[in-house]
Amino acid sequence: MAGNTTGKMFSVTTFGSSHGRALGAVVDGCPAGLELNEEDIQVELNKRRPGTSDITSSRSEQDQVEILSGVFEGKTDGTPIAAVVYNKDVDSAAYEDLKNKPRPGHGDYGWISRYKHYDYRGGGRGSGRITIGHVIGGAVAKKLLNTVNIKVIAHVTQIGKVKSHKVNLDLIEEYSKRNPVRCADPQAANKMEEAILQAKSLGDSIGGIVETIIFNLPAGIGEPVFDKLDGDLSRALMSIGSVKGVEIGFGFDLAESTASETNDEFYIEKDTIKTTTNTSGGVLGGISIGMPVVMRMAVKPTPSISLLQKTVDLERMEESKIEIKGRHDPCICPRIVPVAESAVAIVLADHMIRSGFINPCHL
Amino acid sequence: MAGNTTGKMFSVTTFGSSHGRALGAVVDGCPAGLELNEEDIQVELNKRRPGTSDITSSRSEQDQVEILSGVFEGKTDGTPIAAVVYNKDVDSAAYEDLKNKPRPGHGDYGWISRYKHYDYRGGGRGSGRITIGHVIGGAVAKKLLNTVNIKVIAHVTQIGKVKSHKVNLDLIEEYSKRNPVRCADPQAANKMEEAILQAKSLGDSIGGIVETIIFNLPAGIGEPVFDKLDGDLSRALMSIGSVKGVEIGFGFDLAESTASETNDEFYIEKDTIKTTTNTSGGVLGGISIGMPVVMRMAVKPTPSISLLQKTVDLERMEESKIEIKGRHDPCICPRIVPVAESAVAIVLADHMIRSGFINPCHL
Amino acid sequence: MAGNTTGKMFSVTTFGSSHGRALGAVVDGCPAGLELNEEDIQVELNKRRPGTSDITSSRSEQDQVEILSGVFEGKTDGTPIAAVVYNKDVDSAAYEDLKNKPRPGHGDYGWISRYKHYDYRGGGRGSGRITIGHVIGGAVAKKLLNTVNIKVIAHVTQIGKVKSHKVNLDLIEEYSKRNPVRCADPQAANKMEEAILQAKSLGDSIGGIVETIIFNLPAGIGEPVFDKLDGDLSRALMSIGSVKGVEIGFGFDLAESTASETNDEFYIEKDTIKTTTNTSGGVLGGISIGMPVVMRMAVKPTPSISLLQKTVDLERMEESKIEIKGRHDPCICPRIVPVAESAVAIVLADHMIRSGFINPCHL
Amino acid sequence: MAGNTTGKMFSVTTFGSSHGRALGAVVDGCPAGLELNEEDIQVELNKRRPGTSDITSSRSEQDQVEILSGVFEGKTDGTPIAAVVYNKDVDSAAYEDLKNKPRPGHGDYGWISRYKHYDYRGGGRGSGRITIGHVIGGAVAKKLLNTVNIKVIAHVTQIGKVKSHKVNLDLIEEYSKRNPVRCADPQAANKMEEAILQAKSLGDSIGGIVETIIFNLPAGIGEPVFDKLDGDLSRALMSIGSVKGVEIGFGFDLAESTASETNDEFYIEKDTIKTTTNTSGGVLGGISIGMPVVMRMAVKPTPSISLLQKTVDLERMEESKIEIKGRHDPCICPRIVPVAESAVAIVLADHMIRSGFINPCHL
Repeated sequence: MAGNTTGKMFSVTTFGSSHGRALGAVVDGCPAGLELNEEDIQVELNKRRPGTSDITSSRSEQDQVEILSGVFEGKTDGTPIAAVVYNKDVDSAAYEDLKNKPRPGHGDYGWISRYKHYDYRGGGRGSGRITIGHVIGGAVAKKLLNTVNIKVIAHVTQIGKVKSHKVNLDLIEEYSKRNPVRCADPQAANKMEEAILQAKSLGDSIGGIVETIIFNLPAGIGEPVFDKLDGDLSRALMSIGSVKGVEIGFGFDLAESTASETNDEFYIEKDTIKTTTNTSGGVLGGISIGMPVVMRMAVKPTPSISLLQKTVDLERMEESKIEIKGRHDPCICPRIVPVAESAVAIVLADHMIRSGFINPCHL
Repeated sequence: MAGNTTGKMFSVTTFGSSHGRALGAVVDGCPAGLELNEEDIQVELNKRRPGTSDITSSRSEQDQVEILSGVFEGKTDGTPIAAVVYNKDVDSAAYEDLKNKPRPGHGDYGWISRYKHYDYRGGGRGSGRITIGHVIGGAVAKKLLNTVNIKVIAHVTQIGKVKSHKVNLDLIEEYSKRNPVRCADPQAANKMEEAILQAKSLGDSIGGIVETIIFNLPAGIGEPVFDKLDGDLSRALMSIGSVKGVEIGFGFDLAESTASETNDEFYIEKDTIKTTTNTSGGVLGGISIGMPVVMRMAVKPTPSISLLQKTVDLERMEESKIEIKGRHDPCICPRIVPVAESAVAIVLADHMIRSGFINPCHL
Repeated sequence: MAGNTTGKMFSVTTFGSSHGRALGAVVDGCPAGLELNEEDIQVELNKRRPGTSDITSSRSEQDQVEILSGVFEGKTDGTPIAAVVYNKDVDSAAYEDLKNKPRPGHGDYGWISRYKHYDYRGGGRGSGRITIGHVIGGAVAKKLLNTVNIKVIAHVTQIGKVKSHKVNLDLIEEYSKRNPVRCADPQAANKMEEAILQAKSLGDSIGGIVETIIFNLPAGIGEPVFDKLDGDLSRALMSIGSVKGVEIGFGFDLAESTASETNDEFYIEKDTIKTTTNTSGGVLGGISIGMPVVMRMAVKPTPSISLLQKTVDLERMEESKIEIKGRHDPCICPRIVPVAESAVAIVLADHMIRSGFINPCHL
Repeated sequence: MAGNTTGKMFSVTTFGSSHGRALGAVVDGCPAGLELNEEDIQVELNKRRPGTSDITSSRSEQDQVEILSGVFEGKTDGTPIAAVVYNKDVDSAAYEDLKNKPRPGHGDYGWISRYKHYDYRGGGRGSGRITIGHVIGGAVAKKLLNTVNIKVIAHVTQIGKVKSHKVNLDLIEEYSKRNPVRCADPQAANKMEEAILQAKSLGDSIGGIVETIIFNLPAGIGEPVFDKLDGDLSRALMSIGSVKGVEIGFGFDLAESTASETNDEFYIEKDTIKTTTNTSGGVLGGISIGMPVVMRMAVKPTPSISLLQKTVDLERMEESKIEIKGRHDPCICPRIVPVAESAVAIVLADHMIRSGFINPCHL
């Protein structure tokens, strides 16, 4: 399939652009018999909706979802689940000026090089808004994973130079919901919010780190040698706009260590094999081992800033400058949290079916 | 396709295990008309061969490749290129003891959980030896990429806490070849070698960082939104055994920065669009922009060490201990260099065809 | 991808059911720069719309299409083209009675066996109505093929025992449009219409044969050994509801022949290689040879008939009987014509890109 | 994946050519725990081996298979099963003359058009000899299907104008083994053999029909709407060299019938749903219904004949003539029987896993 579809048995195809008529997704391969309604998806979309706090874009979108197919009498029926969100608050005026001038840090130049004819309004399909499709797919995937008790939780662990303290794994979900930054450490959350507001006040933006944790994933998930679980998860996370790095377990810290320091040793707890430490992040040799899967991703500062920047005018082939107006997030980390969860959930739903843990046809 | 095949238009399927009869690969989708012979592949295999220095495993394998198909009169003919390497120096005695005891840091436990019936000898198909398949595929991909002037170079930038200084991009290939560590900074290389030998003398192993650079990739490569270039590259690198993190451009450092500090501004040099800095690592919005693509991957210390470690006996379901004998690398970074190049080259060959830059049928 | 997506570089994902909210398709991998508007798709949908003559179902649907994405300033922009048709004239009353009774000749029993939870209304996603998705995909594919002068024409050559005479290839398109049966031989068309009306008057239905011809396909299209052109075309045609046989060129007649009678000999006409006969139907060894590609498919009588039939009650697990009411086509051949064209066009668009004849990114 | 791989969960990749060094296949996605040895594959290869009777090619090949990977202690271990057959009796002299002259009815011209650089010796990878790969894949698939009691049997039902009488389904396997034609009706078999020998004596060849039957396939197999069971089977059969038509159940006869004559009515036999007739050939709406699946394929006469034929010299671009020497089958039907079984078994193994009837990881 072409690049807007992902997944082999549980597939998600997304469509739409920032300023076009609508955005949406088709979820195929979801087994029949899963309870699903529009509210299940709406709840997830609301988490990534803009305009909900001082630290997000002011674009006002309700992002109301409509399910077009795939649900019969309140349950999936094994046919594709199509869902759509119409764009309502489109204001393309701010982009007319940017038509031939690729924005630094944005995908414009690559898109123009590749497709020649490019919808420059709001970044077109290069916009973060297209993750509505991810979240629709993720909402279905999460409901499916719930049936086997798997949970995916993302939270912010760093904004700029502000780092959160370690929070007990079991508390992260609850604690991170309590503030707009989506950080489980309340004191760090305050400082993070300040850092974001400061960047905003300067017409600037700031980066951060988002951690995603998978709970209750059984051992044995992941398909060597090219469809390894960590490989597929990395691809899914790295494919989210603004993500520039992914690590699992102790990640880059392992590069500085010796095996005697970091090999996770096995032991038995209540008839279950566990490891005393989890430097591996729950995946060894590309296959899950029954420990929590822990990944972190580096999120760069939102490239749209109102400061004057140098660029080129592609039509005139001369150097030029731009000031980006539009409505932008001074830090995308809080809103990327549900997208990271969705991206991971989609990969897991696919791998759970591919590994024989979820029946491909019906629950 | 199942998990041992990768690539959509340029596909590589690999097979074989550490102590089985043979390993190899089938490369499908290579256009006809590419000059190719066994020596082209052998040269690459020799770079990852064990037993070539003090800092690699002592297993003695010539890894002689035989091309079985796909080449006619010295050129590819558009049919699948199958190539095979027979295992010669197999010594499974050391593994008998490990049969039911998963080695800490190794994939054994995941493989056993997934497949039940597991070839434990030498790590089976979880062994690093299976990257012979990657390198066969990579050798063909590199030759194909050469026809459009694209080059992929990997080198070691860190071993344990020893970091190399920045070396001019153009010198990396030549300089990194001059020492067994494959580091382009000669002074750092010496210290890295020492660090590896020290770990070895302690029966331990050590991690590091390998950087891979793509030269001369045109703008416009990468397929949003799920088959982004950086996403596919991350997956390929993360799927190499022992890799636990991947970053592109400034990667995790971007998390600590603001956009005004790190947005790459565009300018024109000799009719070509370039960026003044390259924090993005040559990919924006998942599509290449014509700048060098720079990725780093975190390599954990080889998990096989001779020190006594705790594990469990899966048959008896009781806690146990192991000492791993066998022949192992005290640091896998030097030998992972050609594998990283191969993994990246395979992704690029595929994407170049998918983007219309290389004809899918013939050169 | 899961089963509702087809195509590797040019992909079509369809969704929706007979009595659900909407049906539609997402077309991914269409190069940017193709002129496309809703009317282009509407024209094709109108060809398969019910209620247009005495010999089709009386369900009254305008099948008005809305393009949701992928078109910018009148041209495709390389992003997925989503298009949707809302169901308007849904009347599920007639199906309540059939809920647990699989209709003979219909897919109900297989669907129930596979998915357990089944949308029985109007045949759910087993309905012929789902070919709206095929036609949306086909409309885009046809426009794309037009840019390289390729044309796909289907027409009816047999209804029951009434066979059309051979009509000159160049006249088939025009002549077959002149009657509701879509047969290029006007005298046969009259008899076919009679045969259909007679079946209708008896509460019965009748089968037939639809031929599809590809004009101006260059030599070299088709990917051995598993993605052969004739293999992929057969799959596409056989996957249309009610199709039970596919043949290419002289097809089953070749089974009765000798090579000396039927081998197509090559000759040269105006610097072009041609064959004196075309028993092969334009494909040899799975690759096109530059001659017209000619396929025929056997269409069974529509299984929905109003006559009393034996079946089983799956809930009570006892034998039972049904009379199918609803609104049905006494012969599906005329309305399957645009679907066959679409199915073939989708395969060709994909293979033309995969063969390097159409640029995958932009026109 | 590229065109030499087929299957989504159970994948077969084949390689090799008629006169190259070797042919073979890599079977990926076979669950661990299946008993498998070289003899299991050899038995199947022997069925398609040439030189076994008067009515097959005289090329003398033992087609000795070697398993390179994927089997550990007599059982599959979930890793790819690579198997190879070296070419032994290669005689390319006869083909030197045909280098630039495409043989009528053969794939040469399409291959040259597509790939430019073409291995013309023995038809290269367009040769029937490449079905060694199919049979290797099929042998593994059959063993896997045996574990769930599914059996695939093919036999010859027609040669030229000689048709076999109907033979009871349960006797076909045994009876068709008793003669070199592989026809279950002994009297027809005699006449078929005569017809083949007569064609041979005239330097000609003759076509026929091969029927393939799947026994014990459960209801619910097949993935609408593009991966229907009959669609995928048609593609697999049509992709075998020389096949020009495929039908399922009553196939083309249904085109001449009415629904009241041919709808299969349901009834209950020992708690199982069955149909009184099987005009559908066991598949409705693309999904199996638990009845035997019956397909027929039209096989054209082998295009290689020794009679003088017209063709063109592609180098000189002038009309020319050829006499094909080499060693050829006067009728390919008998040797295509195991290939048809293999092609069908590969599709079924894949669909059984995709439908949740066979665990993807282990038995």
